[in-house]
Amino acid sequence: MTAPYILRDIPIGIDATGTRDESDSMGMIDVPANHYWGAQTQRSLIHFSIGHERMPMELCRAYGIVKKAAAQVNLADKRLPDWKAAAIIQAADEVATGHLDSEFPLFVWQTGSGTQTNMNVNEVIANRAIQLLGGQIGSKTPVHPNDDVNMGQSSNDSFPTVMHVVTLLEIENSLVPQITDLISCIRNKANEWSNIVKMGRTHLQDAVPLTVGQEWSGWAQQLENALNTLLSARSGLAELAAGGTAVGTGLNAPKGFGKAIAEHIAALTGKPFVTAPNKFAALGGLDAMVQTSAGLRGLAVVLMKIANDMRWLGSGPRCGLSELFLPENEPGSSIMPGKVNPTQCEALVMIATQVMGNDTTVAFAGAQGNFELNVMRPVIVANVLQSIRILADGCRNFRKFSVEGTKLNEAKIKHYVDVSVMLVTTLSPVIGYDKASAIAHRAMEQNETLRDAALASGVSAALFDQHVDPRQMVGDGLAGA
Amino acid sequence: MTAPYILRDIPIGIDATGTRDESDSMGMIDVPANHYWGAQTQRSLIHFSIGHERMPMELCRAYGIVKKAAAQVNLADKRLPDWKAAAIIQAADEVATGHLDSEFPLFVWQTGSGTQTNMNVNEVIANRAIQLLGGQIGSKTPVHPNDDVNMGQSSNDSFPTVMHVVTLLEIENSLVPQITDLISCIRNKANEWSNIVKMGRTHLQDAVPLTVGQEWSGWAQQLENALNTLLSARSGLAELAAGGTAVGTGLNAPKGFGKAIAEHIAALTGKPFVTAPNKFAALGGLDAMVQTSAGLRGLAVVLMKIANDMRWLGSGPRCGLSELFLPENEPGSSIMPGKVNPTQCEALVMIATQVMGNDTTVAFAGAQGNFELNVMRPVIVANVLQSIRILADGCRNFRKFSVEGTKLNEAKIKHYVDVSVMLVTTLSPVIGYDKASAIAHRAMEQNETLRDAALASGVSAALFDQHVDPRQMVGDGLAGA
Amino acid sequence: MTAPYILRDIPIGIDATGTRDESDSMGMIDVPANHYWGAQTQRSLIHFSIGHERMPMELCRAYGIVKKAAAQVNLADKRLPDWKAAAIIQAADEVATGHLDSEFPLFVWQTGSGTQTNMNVNEVIANRAIQLLGGQIGSKTPVHPNDDVNMGQSSNDSFPTVMHVVTLLEIENSLVPQITDLISCIRNKANEWSNIVKMGRTHLQDAVPLTVGQEWSGWAQQLENALNTLLSARSGLAELAAGGTAVGTGLNAPKGFGKAIAEHIAALTGKPFVTAPNKFAALGGLDAMVQTSAGLRGLAVVLMKIANDMRWLGSGPRCGLSELFLPENEPGSSIMPGKVNPTQCEALVMIATQVMGNDTTVAFAGAQGNFELNVMRPVIVANVLQSIRILADGCRNFRKFSVEGTKLNEAKIKHYVDVSVMLVTTLSPVIGYDKASAIAHRAMEQNETLRDAALASGVSAALFDQHVDPRQMVGDGLAGA
Amino acid sequence: MTAPYILRDIPIGIDATGTRDESDSMGMIDVPANHYWGAQTQRSLIHFSIGHERMPMELCRAYGIVKKAAAQVNLADKRLPDWKAAAIIQAADEVATGHLDSEFPLFVWQTGSGTQTNMNVNEVIANRAIQLLGGQIGSKTPVHPNDDVNMGQSSNDSFPTVMHVVTLLEIENSLVPQITDLISCIRNKANEWSNIVKMGRTHLQDAVPLTVGQEWSGWAQQLENALNTLLSARSGLAELAAGGTAVGTGLNAPKGFGKAIAEHIAALTGKPFVTAPNKFAALGGLDAMVQTSAGLRGLAVVLMKIANDMRWLGSGPRCGLSELFLPENEPGSSIMPGKVNPTQCEALVMIATQVMGNDTTVAFAGAQGNFELNVMRPVIVANVLQSIRILADGCRNFRKFSVEGTKLNEAKIKHYVDVSVMLVTTLSPVIGYDKASAIAHRAMEQNETLRDAALASGVSAALFDQHVDPRQMVGDGLAGA
Repeated sequence: MTAPYILRDIPIGIDATGTRDESDSMGMIDVPANHYWGAQTQRSLIHFSIGHERMPMELCRAYGIVKKAAAQVNLADKRLPDWKAAAIIQAADEVATGHLDSEFPLFVWQTGSGTQTNMNVNEVIANRAIQLLGGQIGSKTPVHPNDDVNMGQSSNDSFPTVMHVVTLLEIENSLVPQITDLISCIRNKANEWSNIVKMGRTHLQDAVPLTVGQEWSGWAQQLENALNTLLSARSGLAELAAGGTAVGTGLNAPKGFGKAIAEHIAALTGKPFVTAPNKFAALGGLDAMVQTSAGLRGLAVVLMKIANDMRWLGSGPRCGLSELFLPENEPGSSIMPGKVNPTQCEALVMIATQVMGNDTTVAFAGAQGNFELNVMRPVIVANVLQSIRILADGCRNFRKFSVEGTKLNEAKIKHYVDVSVMLVTTLSPVIGYDKASAIAHRAMEQNETLRDAALASGVSAALFDQHVDPRQMVGDGLAGA
Repeated sequence: MTAPYILRDIPIGIDATGTRDESDSMGMIDVPANHYWGAQTQRSLIHFSIGHERMPMELCRAYGIVKKAAAQVNLADKRLPDWKAAAIIQAADEVATGHLDSEFPLFVWQTGSGTQTNMNVNEVIANRAIQLLGGQIGSKTPVHPNDDVNMGQSSNDSFPTVMHVVTLLEIENSLVPQITDLISCIRNKANEWSNIVKMGRTHLQDAVPLTVGQEWSGWAQQLENALNTLLSARSGLAELAAGGTAVGTGLNAPKGFGKAIAEHIAALTGKPFVTAPNKFAALGGLDAMVQTSAGLRGLAVVLMKIANDMRWLGSGPRCGLSELFLPENEPGSSIMPGKVNPTQCEALVMIATQVMGNDTTVAFAGAQGNFELNVMRPVIVANVLQSIRILADGCRNFRKFSVEGTKLNEAKIKHYVDVSVMLVTTLSPVIGYDKASAIAHRAMEQNETLRDAALASGVSAALFDQHVDPRQMVGDGLAGA
Repeated sequence: MTAPYILRDIPIGIDATGTRDESDSMGMIDVPANHYWGAQTQRSLIHFSIGHERMPMELCRAYGIVKKAAAQVNLADKRLPDWKAAAIIQAADEVATGHLDSEFPLFVWQTGSGTQTNMNVNEVIANRAIQLLGGQIGSKTPVHPNDDVNMGQSSNDSFPTVMHVVTLLEIENSLVPQITDLISCIRNKANEWSNIVKMGRTHLQDAVPLTVGQEWSGWAQQLENALNTLLSARSGLAELAAGGTAVGTGLNAPKGFGKAIAEHIAALTGKPFVTAPNKFAALGGLDAMVQTSAGLRGLAVVLMKIANDMRWLGSGPRCGLSELFLPENEPGSSIMPGKVNPTQCEALVMIATQVMGNDTTVAFAGAQGNFELNVMRPVIVANVLQSIRILADGCRNFRKFSVEGTKLNEAKIKHYVDVSVMLVTTLSPVIGYDKASAIAHRAMEQNETLRDAALASGVSAALFDQHVDPRQMVGDGLAGA
Repeated sequence: MTAPYILRDIPIGIDATGTRDESDSMGMIDVPANHYWGAQTQRSLIHFSIGHERMPMELCRAYGIVKKAAAQVNLADKRLPDWKAAAIIQAADEVATGHLDSEFPLFVWQTGSGTQTNMNVNEVIANRAIQLLGGQIGSKTPVHPNDDVNMGQSSNDSFPTVMHVVTLLEIENSLVPQITDLISCIRNKANEWSNIVKMGRTHLQDAVPLTVGQEWSGWAQQLENALNTLLSARSGLAELAAGGTAVGTGLNAPKGFGKAIAEHIAALTGKPFVTAPNKFAALGGLDAMVQTSAGLRGLAVVLMKIANDMRWLGSGPRCGLSELFLPENEPGSSIMPGKVNPTQCEALVMIATQVMGNDTTVAFAGAQGNFELNVMRPVIVANVLQSIRILADGCRNFRKFSVEGTKLNEAKIKHYVDVSVMLVTTLSPVIGYDKASAIAHRAMEQNETLRDAALASGVSAALFDQHVDPRQMVGDGLAGA
């Protein structure tokens, strides 16, 4: 197999119709002649025609990075000749940059190791490399999907590798910017409204005052905590299984392969990937994915709280709390004219429930490993990537179409402060809890203002006015006591 | 607006490029000129560009049935003139039969009531009806999406109506046939192998014998029970919210509308739909959907058990239990040549975990209704329909590509019976539990056969041979005692 | 073992201190001399000292019924002599009636088959029967825990039998009465308030009117639907595994044992228990328990919705919706004097989340069976029984301490109807959706009443007054359209 | 109320029978005269008699620490006189050290803020302090439960404070030592068996070899990763809500109270507690508890994998994999003599499912906060503490009664290596994947050894023996490639 092979400048695409023969260890099979994939991809399409869910394209692209890194290592180790490595690397780059997206048709519901998607990638890269080298597509010559493209790898170590790579990239590139933008947006509102005093509510019941800014600062802090928890999963995701091959021992991979490929992936992505410290744990478990899913769920939990608060505070316009005016983006009802609904909040709450359910799937699947392999990988990565995507898009739209345009109903907010009875709390340290309590009950039963009830109960007007000042009751600063 | 309107024979499709103006109560907006949808669909596309998940097409098609039925009622009530009803009905038929699939681009993550999809359907039907009547698309004349297509309806009652309709249809038409086929396939195997004695296993440990047929009959029975549980959800699904309009009172719908539309839907689908006995429950809750999801989960629970049993019994070939030979459909490993894996079982187990996670989402969302509406509808129906689809396809492929081709390793099965120690159980009523126990322990410790250990412990050969006969120990019949 | 054995009248209790020797197939072990349990119970106490959760006492008592029924069958079959059967039956009765509760100390976290609890029951009944017959406790003579008390049974079939028995009894005796009482209570309120018109809310936003009675009737209907779903699990629970013994074949049980014991259990409990049609399914799966848990969850989903509605409608007193006055049962705050909170609603909502989490555990565990046995039984039955108990108690206290004493704030309810803008919906069929929508928007923007906005928009006063009458908008009857 | 009050040396206990009057803002109520609790505890017992679940005693004791710290701050601030602070501190110490355990009878299912338990603690400490000062129990003089014991606090900030304190203490004191002991035990086994070559299994199918030590090292690593994830929740738990009082603003607490009480709690516990940076987030959310629960779930996921592996490897004795001998702790079956089951594994797997279900409850509840308060606290802390406890006890017993005593079946392990066909993998880089695959298939079909099949396929004996050496295939070191 010595080279007269030269890398040619051939555009992507196969000018053929009908089918061509491809083979694997089970024998021959027809594949569509205008596609790069081979026998194993074709078999998977037949046997796993289940549902509408395809392997996420982000994962297939990230596989291009992993395959490129493997070829770089094999080239450096002189296990691949220059010309072959160059062809594989070009094809892998085309995968990574999305130019071969149409070649990855497989379903999520396939073999639990992800072998079929690994072979899909191997076959596509091999055939594209063959094409680039002037060979005959489907001939496995001069580039073999297993012997060359998969060199030093097994699905068992390369699929969890790409799971970690794509998950970390998606979190950092797609999700984190949207969370931080949302936090900024909420913090800006908190600052803007830091002096507007409103009634707090606990148990849904009137409580003591705080500022609107303080309330919003709590939401921002919850999001920041959730972001930090999510980011704590990064160190686990950064550890890559590659190098372990079939069961973790690294059989058929040269010594040092794991460390080297992790360095190449780190260089290609700019992320701090390293080789996993124990390859048996990296193949038998998917614990960093379970932790990541929990982090996504933590974010969902917080978003649900914030979206619920916003839609309740925006409830009305005349029969609700009506402290907030949420933007009107679309007609709310097909039958009730003029109705406007908190639809962005609703979408976000639905997203939160989806992420929480996805997380149940991920945890359950993560617990189902046996011996040297967990074979629930496609379902785990598909759920995690869906969660990331809908959280990222959901945060963006929620911010853009709801939070940014939210306005205060200051008249209503002031009204609640004026009529509330719970301001009596501030008298408690002065006149005692039991007496303060009696005043509050009296106000409600007699339908009096708190001041009237207090004075009728023997509190002096001076004492009342000295202590019961909502503005004094909210303390200093946005973050509370 | 009296008629010179005549229904014309105009093929589907709008011969236009660029955009056209459409309007709703928020004002004007550009929509693609070659699509039928209107202003509210377009607004939703902008505001809810979240994730990849679109409203399931099965639901959009079923909406065609609901809209047709509504038009039939309105026609019968003379609320719609003949010519207008005819146009709406033709357009609704085109929706129901999938000829307008490309007109339903909305995302799952939208308003929680499903209003935007209801309006999408209203707009598409209205514009198509306008086209059929020679009017100007986008003019809302002579067919108005709200006043005519949505006549007597609200999203609040029509969306849960279509949720029930599509769910019942999908269960009966897609899922039930696959479950029953799988049951038949398993029953056939059970009958075929009703005389093959094998060792039972409890706690994963050797237990007493049963036949292969009995083991398989248990799987078939579990599936049948699960099917029955699932079908018990049908009566709830058959109850339709239509007629309740905005909050359940039926405002703006004529008396009897609910009963009439349910009858029409029943006639159009051949399913026993009826009007829900209480419309406030039908709008405020989605309890039949939650029950349905639980039924789907029950099926997943059983399928996981069966798929696990099959892959464990097929484990090996030389270092596992190896009682079953599962069909070899594809190469199992990218690195281990000749490896064959239980991939159909794995896909089914992953599907089971997905269905269980979806069910968590559905139950959680089902609990989040407030007052007169539950606004978690899109996420609920999307999850239920996904569960149905992957269960149906998964059952089919599991049967076709794994169960049907499964063969017995009779030599191995017989070997286990020959060497097992637990046959001692049959001696227990004869010589007492304690003595039988001592014999079993001795056999293991001395590495003897059970017979040798028994005889060495003073049991006569005659007594042993009279009682310890695996074939006698399995009882009669496939179903057990 | 011919009888001089006579059943004596000996009160419960062992007059001994220190320890006595008991033995099993593992050898001798010390047990507390003043307890009836034997060696296997004692070993379990040592090896499974995990957490605080003990096997639910209801289950241990129900085991008394199962053991009594087994003895009755064995007596009728003449496998047990009269005197021995009589002693076992008396001891089993004492278990069933709770007189031996202190003898069942085992933890939930034990062997997954429930064998240790089965043996606990066998040992206690054997030793108590020995005592009643004048024998020496611990001697296994003349009553042996395995050979006599466990005659015709295995833990593998008797534990799922008792799981079904206790679950069905607890549902029917504890839970169903509390649900029906709650439904009645809500129905009574619905009738009482059938003429009070209030504003409906959808998406938390003002919608069109309904009566308070209608709103409450929806809650009652949701509960009734949930009850019916729960009750549909009864037929599965009524099927008993007994007779299948170790793996389902009925080894060591006489023919007909399963049918006979089910009849006896039915007679003893008055419930329609029958023998399971397939014993392999009955041992390998726990599907009726999973279905039951789903039914309990369905109830939790509905209760959460109702409790949430009630606490939101009761929110305030001055900064919330305040349509309902919930009873004040206790001070609400340790710092805010006079605060009263919807604590019964909160307890019920927490119960609902617990039941939903328990259900996740049950479904997951239900899917983890292998071959002839599911060894997740204790965790499943413990969770189901906890769910039943907290739902039953929670429904009772919620009704007694919250729903029954709830009162209407009629002034506030009327106020909302007076100011709402959404009454415009009733004009939509008259003047068209688009025009009605413009009026609603105008009212909000100009801060006008709906009537003023309508008249200013060209609607005649006569037309307005003819159509916009909240009382006419709520339709007939409690159940809606 | 100036002092002649002197702290006396009075033992715990009230020498009284019947009832005494206690009062709160709702009025008078009878409480048992021999208990320290007061009116609000008594009301809660009546209104929340739900289920068997009591507020975890660990939490009540930890409340003693929090109340002591509060009194120390109030003393330092001179808000409490010396003699009063001393009495409160002594009573709080008695709570913390478990001497007043019998005084905390409240149920988990109570007000969602935990107010009733906070008041229970306040009442008990107040009455005990009154007793110590020679006052009349129930008189609230000279120590008032709200004004004195609760000084500077609200349930709203003190209950989440104690939730964090007790959770961090339980994790560090109860759970972490058991995890680390289990890891050590597994690591020891891994080292002991680092040279025993065994067959790996992927997809449950025979794969390539590794050492027993490597397999066990993977389990240890998974546990270590899970432990690290769990510990990453500590920084969130260390942040305390105290100081925020009713809604986060710190109303009625002096400036600096939050910082000071956190320092005192840190000093009393030796743990790095600090005041939460944002009190609105600390009251409105319970995100650190959700994160902690996720960490516990991560541990459960790993334990389930390990326990499953162990029981499968120990399956048999003659019809299973039988690579491991697990210790025999008790008879395994009530009907099958001599049966021994992997009961510790089963208990641990059940615990894992419970923890996963608990986590669903916690996440769901954590998402249900509204405005300034999440009122799902008792259910959250009860579930988290149960998870901690059963994980801790489960890890201990699993280690002590199963892992430590596990032995290898070396003969069986060697046998599997001898007969496996998958060793062919090592030939793949030499002769190519396709040819190696054909050899493996031939061996299975012809029932040959791998060597015979290879030689018959044209591989030279020399080449075969050079490459196919299991000992060379396992690589170096315990941790894999």
